[in-house]
Amino acid sequence: MKTRSLLLPLAAILACAPGLRADEGMWTFDNLPVQKLKADYNFTPDQAWLDHVRLSSLRFPGGSGSFISADGLVLTNHHVGRGSVQQLSSKEHDYIRDGFIAATRGEELKVPGLELYTLMAMENVTDRVNKAVKPGSDDKEALKARKDELGKITKEIQDRTGLTAEAVTLYAGGEYWMYQYKKHTDVRLVMAPEQQIAFFGGDSDNFTYPRHNLDFTLFRVYEDGKPYHPAHHLNWTKTGVKNGDLTFVVGHPGSTERLGTSAQMAFAGGFSLPMRIKGMERQRQALLDYAKLSPENKRQVGSTIFGLENGIKAMNGYLAGLKDQEAMARIAKAEATLKAKVAADRDSDAAGSWDAIEKALEVQKALFQESQALNARSGAAYESALLGHALTLVRLAEESAKPSDQRLEEYRDTRLEGVRKRLLVNRPFYPALETAMFTFGLTESAGTPLVASILGGRTPAEFAKAAVDGSRLNDPAVRKALVEGGKKAIDASQDPMIVLARKIDGPNREFRRKLEDQVTSVLAEHGGRIAKARFKAYGKSVYPDATFTLRMTYGPVASYPANGTHIQPFTTLGGLYDRAAAWGPEAENGAWSLPKRWIENRSKVNPDTPFVFAHAVDIIGGNSGSPVIDRKGDLIGLIFDGNIESLPGHFFYDGKVNRGIAVDARAILESLDKVYADKPIVHEILGK
Amino acid sequence: MKTRSLLLPLAAILACAPGLRADEGMWTFDNLPVQKLKADYNFTPDQAWLDHVRLSSLRFPGGSGSFISADGLVLTNHHVGRGSVQQLSSKEHDYIRDGFIAATRGEELKVPGLELYTLMAMENVTDRVNKAVKPGSDDKEALKARKDELGKITKEIQDRTGLTAEAVTLYAGGEYWMYQYKKHTDVRLVMAPEQQIAFFGGDSDNFTYPRHNLDFTLFRVYEDGKPYHPAHHLNWTKTGVKNGDLTFVVGHPGSTERLGTSAQMAFAGGFSLPMRIKGMERQRQALLDYAKLSPENKRQVGSTIFGLENGIKAMNGYLAGLKDQEAMARIAKAEATLKAKVAADRDSDAAGSWDAIEKALEVQKALFQESQALNARSGAAYESALLGHALTLVRLAEESAKPSDQRLEEYRDTRLEGVRKRLLVNRPFYPALETAMFTFGLTESAGTPLVASILGGRTPAEFAKAAVDGSRLNDPAVRKALVEGGKKAIDASQDPMIVLARKIDGPNREFRRKLEDQVTSVLAEHGGRIAKARFKAYGKSVYPDATFTLRMTYGPVASYPANGTHIQPFTTLGGLYDRAAAWGPEAENGAWSLPKRWIENRSKVNPDTPFVFAHAVDIIGGNSGSPVIDRKGDLIGLIFDGNIESLPGHFFYDGKVNRGIAVDARAILESLDKVYADKPIVHEILGK
Repeated sequence: MKTRSLLLPLAAILACAPGLRADEGMWTFDNLPVQKLKADYNFTPDQAWLDHVRLSSLRFPGGSGSFISADGLVLTNHHVGRGSVQQLSSKEHDYIRDGFIAATRGEELKVPGLELYTLMAMENVTDRVNKAVKPGSDDKEALKARKDELGKITKEIQDRTGLTAEAVTLYAGGEYWMYQYKKHTDVRLVMAPEQQIAFFGGDSDNFTYPRHNLDFTLFRVYEDGKPYHPAHHLNWTKTGVKNGDLTFVVGHPGSTERLGTSAQMAFAGGFSLPMRIKGMERQRQALLDYAKLSPENKRQVGSTIFGLENGIKAMNGYLAGLKDQEAMARIAKAEATLKAKVAADRDSDAAGSWDAIEKALEVQKALFQESQALNARSGAAYESALLGHALTLVRLAEESAKPSDQRLEEYRDTRLEGVRKRLLVNRPFYPALETAMFTFGLTESAGTPLVASILGGRTPAEFAKAAVDGSRLNDPAVRKALVEGGKKAIDASQDPMIVLARKIDGPNREFRRKLEDQVTSVLAEHGGRIAKARFKAYGKSVYPDATFTLRMTYGPVASYPANGTHIQPFTTLGGLYDRAAAWGPEAENGAWSLPKRWIENRSKVNPDTPFVFAHAVDIIGGNSGSPVIDRKGDLIGLIFDGNIESLPGHFFYDGKVNRGIAVDARAILESLDKVYADKPIVHEILGK
Repeated sequence: MKTRSLLLPLAAILACAPGLRADEGMWTFDNLPVQKLKADYNFTPDQAWLDHVRLSSLRFPGGSGSFISADGLVLTNHHVGRGSVQQLSSKEHDYIRDGFIAATRGEELKVPGLELYTLMAMENVTDRVNKAVKPGSDDKEALKARKDELGKITKEIQDRTGLTAEAVTLYAGGEYWMYQYKKHTDVRLVMAPEQQIAFFGGDSDNFTYPRHNLDFTLFRVYEDGKPYHPAHHLNWTKTGVKNGDLTFVVGHPGSTERLGTSAQMAFAGGFSLPMRIKGMERQRQALLDYAKLSPENKRQVGSTIFGLENGIKAMNGYLAGLKDQEAMARIAKAEATLKAKVAADRDSDAAGSWDAIEKALEVQKALFQESQALNARSGAAYESALLGHALTLVRLAEESAKPSDQRLEEYRDTRLEGVRKRLLVNRPFYPALETAMFTFGLTESAGTPLVASILGGRTPAEFAKAAVDGSRLNDPAVRKALVEGGKKAIDASQDPMIVLARKIDGPNREFRRKLEDQVTSVLAEHGGRIAKARFKAYGKSVYPDATFTLRMTYGPVASYPANGTHIQPFTTLGGLYDRAAAWGPEAENGAWSLPKRWIENRSKVNPDTPFVFAHAVDIIGGNSGSPVIDRKGDLIGLIFDGNIESLPGHFFYDGKVNRGIAVDARAILESLDKVYADKPIVHEILGK
C-alpha cells in the first residue's frame, strides 16, 4: 500500500460528515474516520494494526475471507464456499449434505478455478485519469478516454509489480484507484460442516436474527504444492467478545446505491429491482421443477437455488427500504441541500447532472426489451453455460487479433490470461440441467425477433436439446483446442453453440455500445460531477458506495428493538437445540432439523457457548465471510449475514436497527473440538 | 344455564359472518360457531363438553382461571394472582421475589377480599328489558328504564337462585343478558413461582413472543373452612399438544371495540387512548420516583408499576392497530355497506345513529376537563385509596336511606352487601405511599377550580400529607364503625378524608349525571340500533365485543410470519437458559436473569420440555389465566399473553399474525416436579 495514499487522509479528516448516523460507513483503507473512532471509542488503529488486518484479509468470488493460521488456513462462510463444496461433490460424495473433514493435509481437496486475492497496495490515480479526458469531450468520449487510461495504468502496474491490478471507480466517478492484489490460485477445501447446520433455518431464517447457523468453511492456500505461509494471519481470540464491545469488520461489501440520485432510487424501486426479482423467481421455479425429478437433480442445483433465494430475499429487503417514507424524505432533503449548494456555486459543473442522470435512466428503461432479447449475464447467455463458453471463444478469437487498447475491456492484455484460464476450468457438467436451463433462458426471450429467428420454428426445448446434445464444448480439451486454434478454428467450427454464438455476438456488441453511449457514460460523467460537488461541500467525510473492494466498518455488539422487545445480542448453542426441538424435524422440509453429529454429540457441547452475535456494523452482501476483529486485531467472529432490518442498507443506513450477524469464534472452536473432533485444526488455529 | 338460550342458536346458525377472518371470534356460550368448527376442524362440542369447560372456568378480578383438581385447586397466571401475592407479602416475606410454596394445606394463605366466580347460568332478557322502555322515550329515559328493569330482574334472580346475578349488555345494546354466578369467597394461595421466572424478560418481553415465562400461580377455593370440591375441574393432559393441533380458550376477554363506529375508533385513536397513555405514564413516573427511595418502597409498588407498564404497552399496541391503513379501510368499507343496507330499509331506526354517536363523542371530549378535575377511578379518587373509602362511606350512608330503585346503581339492594364487604377488607397500608399517590393525584388536577378550592392555598403535597396523617380510615374497625353508624356518624365525622369526600360527592354526582344524559345514554341507544340493523343484515353470525364475561375462542397451535422469518410455534425450557446466557444477568436490571432454584436445578430439567406455545386464538386482556383445552376437554396450557401483533385485536382481528401465548402444561408440571419439588401438588393435579 502506498503510504502517501493511506496516512495523509487519516490525519486530514477533522469532522464526520453531516448526517452520518451512528457507526455508519463502509470505509476505504485510505480514508478511515479516525477522529470519530477516537472520539466514540477511544481507539486509534496504528499502521501496523491496519496492515495486519488488511494483509490477513482475502477476497473470495462474491465474498470475503481471512488467513487464520501460519500455514495458510483460510476461514470463510459455508455459503461463500458452498459453490466450491458443491463443485467437489458428486452423486457418490455429497459434501454439502454430509460435510467434509480432511483427516490429513493430504486429503485436502483442490478446488479447480477458485482464486483468492490479498490487497497488497492501492493507488489514487484520479488526477491522471481525469487529465486523459480532452477538454470539450462529450460523455462518450470521456468514458472511453478514462477507460483507455485506466487500461494503460493497469498494464504499467502489472508489469512493474507482478501483482494483479484492478481499476476501482469510487464515488460514482469522483475518484479512480488502482488496487493491487496478490492472487492465490491453489486453494483446497479443508473442512466444511453439514449444510443443515451451516444454513439452519433455511431460506426462512436467512437474513434474520436471532440465528443459529454454523456458517463457516475452512480452505487452505497452497503455493508450489505446499501450504502457503502468509506474512499475516489473524490470531484466534483468547477472551471472546461481550455485549457492548467494539468490533471491526474487514471485507468486501458488494454493492450499495446510497449516493445515487433520487431518480436512481426511483428507477430501482419502480423498475429495475422488481424486474430482477420477478426474473429470479421464474428461474427459481424452473430449477425447482428440475429438482423435483430426482434427489440427484436436487443435489445438482442446490447451490444455484440457494443463491437465487438469497438474492430474492435480499432484493425484497432493498425494496422495503425504498418504501420507508421517513428515510426517503431524509434522502430527498439531503439531495435538495446539495443541489442548492451546487446552484450557488459558479465553479460547479454539476447543476445539470441530476437531470442528465434522470434522462439516461429513461433511455435505460426504453432499452429494456432489447436487453431482454439478449438475456446475457456473466458467464452465460440464455442461461446456457455452454453458450457462455462459446461466446467467450468467439470473442477471444476476434479480440486477440486487435491491438490491446482497441479491444473490449475484458480482453485487454492485462486480463487475457484470466479469460483463457477460466475457460479451461473443468467443472461438473449435467446435460439434462444444461438443457433445462437453456430451455428456460430461451423461453424467457421467446417473444423477441432475435430469439424467434434463432429458434426457426422449433420450440425452445427442442432447440436447447439439439444444441446441448450436439455440442462438445463441455469438454475442456475441446475448448482448449478452440482457444489454441484461434479465429480460424472458430470460423471453421460447426459446434451448434459456436454457430449460435457467432450469430448473437453482433447484436450483443451493438447493444453494449448503445448502453455505454447513452447510459453508462452519462451516469459515469454526471455521477462524478455530483461526487465532486459533494467533496467540495463536505470534504471527503463521506464514504463511497460499495464496490466489492476492501472496506472497514466498526461498531459494538448490540441488541436492537424489534418484535415489540429488545433482541438478544447473542444466541447460544443451547438455543440451537431449543429451536430444533421447538420446530421438530419435519417443519418446512426439515429446515430446523439437526445433523446426526449434532444430535449424537449434544452432551459434549456446552450449551452456554455463545453461538451468533449481532453488532452495529455497516455491511452488505459481499461481506459474507469477513473476519470480525477486536481492538487487538484478533479474530472474534465471522460475518455471515445481516438482520432483515439491514437490507434497506442497500440505500441507507439506520444504526438503530441495522445489524451485522456473525458466528462467534467460540462456537466455531467448540464445534470443531466437540462435534467434529478435528483436533489438528483446533491446534492449528490456536497456534499450538 | 338455560337450555333454551344455549341449544337453539347452536342449531340455528347456518353460515359464518361475511368477513369473518380465520378463527376470529370471542364467542358467547349461547352462540358458538358450531358449523364453522365442524367444517374447519371436524369437531362438534356436545352439551356435556360445553358444561364441563364452563363449570371448570373461573373469573378472577381482572382475569380468568380454572379448577384443576377435585379438591378445589385453581390455576391462573402469576400476573393475575400477583396483586394477591403482593398483598400477602411484607417486608419480611417477599413472596413476589422469592415465590411461595405451601408445604401442607395448613400453610395455604387466605387472600383477604379475593373472590372468584363460576358462571352457572345465563338468560337472555332482551325482550323484557326493551319492553320496559315506554314508546316515545328519549335516550335518557330509555337508559333509565332499561337499568331499572335490569335491577328488578337481578333481584328476582338472586332471590330465586341464591346466585350472584349480573346484567350483561352485549352488542353495544343489541342484547341484554343476566349471567348468574356462584361466588367463592375463601381463596388461599397455594404456590407461586418467583416473579423473575414468571415475568422473565420484564416489560421488554411483555406482549411479545418467543417467550419464556412460567406465568402461573396456584390457589385453592375453600368452603366452610375445607377444600371445596367443584362439580367440574379440568384434567391435566396426558399427551400434550403439538403444532397444528386445535385448541380452545375459555375465559373472560375484558374489552374490545371492534363493533364501534368509525367515529368511535377515531375518538379512541385521536383522543381517549393517547390521553390515557399519557396519564398512565405520568403515574408510572410518580411510582418510580417513590420506588427509588428504598428497596422496601420498590417492593410495595411492584404490582402497581407492573400493571401500569402492562397497560401502557397494550394501549400503544391498540393505537398501532388504528394506524393500520389497510385494516381501517376494510372497517370503513364494512360500515359503508351496513349504512347502505340501513338506508334501504324503511323499518330500521338506525339511519341517524352514526351521526348521533359522533355528536355524543364530541360532547364527551368537551366534558374532558371536568372529568380531569374529578380524577376519579374505581376504588380511588385523586389516586387516594383512603379518599376512595371515604367516598364510598359517604354514598353508602346517603344511598341506603333511599328506596333501592332510586339509588345509584351500585348501591342497590342486590349489590349493597358486596360494597360493605369490600369496604372492610384489610389490605396492606403504607402511609408514605398513600401520601405520594394522593399528592400525584391532586397535582394532576391542580389547575382546576375544584382542586384549587380543595387545596385552599396549600400545595398538593402539604394537603395530602395532612389528610393522610389525620385520617383513621386505614383502620378497618374505623370504617366498620362508620358503616354501622350510618348517615349520622358520617355527618358527624371530622376525619379529613370524610370531610373531603362530602365536598366532592356533589360535583362527582353532577358530572356522572351529565355524562349519562349526554353521552352514555346516546351510545347505548344508538349502539343498540346499529346492532339490531347488523343482526337483521347478517343474522347473529357476529360475536359481541368483549365484556369481561365468559367466552370461547379456538384455533390451532401455529407459527406466524414476523421478523423476516416464521416464528417457532413452541419454545422450550432449554430456550430459557439460552436467553439467560445470551443476555447475561446484568442486562436491563436483570430482566433475563434466572432465579437461584432454576440455576441450581438446571441439570434435572429436561431442556426439550415445551415451555410456551403460540396459537391462533382470539384473545385480549382479561383472558389472562384462561385454561387452554384440547378436543377432549383436557388442560394443555395456560393463556398468559398475546404477541405484539395481537394488540390491534382491540379493534380488529388479523388471523395471519394475531396469536395467543400460553404456558405449556408440560412446563408447569416439569417445573413443579424438578425445580420446586412440590410432589403433593404434582400428584394432586395428575389426579393420583
